[in-house]
Amino acid sequence: MGEYLHDHPVTPRTEDEKQKVINRLKRIEGQVRGIQKMVEEDRYCVDILVQISAINAALKKVGFSLMERHTKHCVSEAIKTGEGNEAIEELIEVIKQFSK
Amino acid sequence: MGEYLHDHPVTPRTEDEKQKVINRLKRIEGQVRGIQKMVEEDRYCVDILVQISAINAALKKVGFSLMERHTKHCVSEAIKTGEGNEAIEELIEVIKQFSK
Amino acid sequence: MGEYLHDHPVTPRTEDEKQKVINRLKRIEGQVRGIQKMVEEDRYCVDILVQISAINAALKKVGFSLMERHTKHCVSEAIKTGEGNEAIEELIEVIKQFSK
Amino acid sequence: MGEYLHDHPVTPRTEDEKQKVINRLKRIEGQVRGIQKMVEEDRYCVDILVQISAINAALKKVGFSLMERHTKHCVSEAIKTGEGNEAIEELIEVIKQFSK
Repeated sequence: MGEYLHDHPVTPRTEDEKQKVINRLKRIEGQVRGIQKMVEEDRYCVDILVQISAINAALKKVGFSLMERHTKHCVSEAIKTGEGNEAIEELIEVIKQFSK
Repeated sequence: MGEYLHDHPVTPRTEDEKQKVINRLKRIEGQVRGIQKMVEEDRYCVDILVQISAINAALKKVGFSLMERHTKHCVSEAIKTGEGNEAIEELIEVIKQFSK
Repeated sequence: MGEYLHDHPVTPRTEDEKQKVINRLKRIEGQVRGIQKMVEEDRYCVDILVQISAINAALKKVGFSLMERHTKHCVSEAIKTGEGNEAIEELIEVIKQFSK
Repeated sequence: MGEYLHDHPVTPRTEDEKQKVINRLKRIEGQVRGIQKMVEEDRYCVDILVQISAINAALKKVGFSLMERHTKHCVSEAIKTGEGNEAIEELIEVIKQFSK
């Protein structure tokens, strides 16, 4: 990784795209607060664990949609301009981390 | 699953235990807010994906520590009182969801 | 981990139990050979990747069923004889590896 | 998925590439046989579970290397010829299955 780092995406997200991702993250933030409350109220451990799994699934979903957009824009652009290999290796690296 | 649901853990968490879990969840909540900011500021997709992986890892860590406590208390208690199988099947079910 | 290692399960598997697990593993072995053939025949990468995912899922399924049996027998036995904590910590350790 | 299926990779694997993948798969096949033997010999469940995790990790490693090659060849080719979106959606789909 590392050599191919940008500060910004090649194609900036539209306001609408941003808002959708942020809304999903706000919902996830709310779910994390929900778990704090469950712990405070001494709720049954298995119910808390089920909630944590749900948050993980929601986060992965956001991740996959960002990954798809990233591949369609940044990686594709890199491939067209001959910088494909670095972009692809960086992508595979992040996929590996994701699938842990 | 389902038949063995409790509303509360057999051994209530101490205030100190609760506080530790809540502190970890507050940190995770902050990380989720951090990602929202990254999206707003149009930060590089791969950096955002790396952050999402980090949150997933942190959530799993909390999950595993709750799972250990649950097994040491609730499941152990169930085993000693002859209700072990239901508690274990419920545990395995939640582990499966977790490892997705 | 480590301190609580046995050479054999507390309750030996019946011949029937063994045979079922072995049959599932033989099928998985066949699937792995199938992928080798796909690679030799230059089959489409995505089809090969789908097959690898299927094998991973099948292996996890075998793993979860062994895990359930292990918890119902070895771990339960350990809990009843007061050695529960070591057995549970060992179990959680292996669950962590599994969910990677 | 589905609409973008090829029977063969755009760039055929070299004999050397094929042999490397096949060797790794043969080793995995041997590991699966090893687990069968462990079950037959009534070995300790946790040791078997550790072995299953190791096979899963090895399979994922093969998968990621195929995925990298696929993206560098087939997906890149598709992007250059304007069929990128279908190829990328197919790729993301298989990544999702992989990270389960």
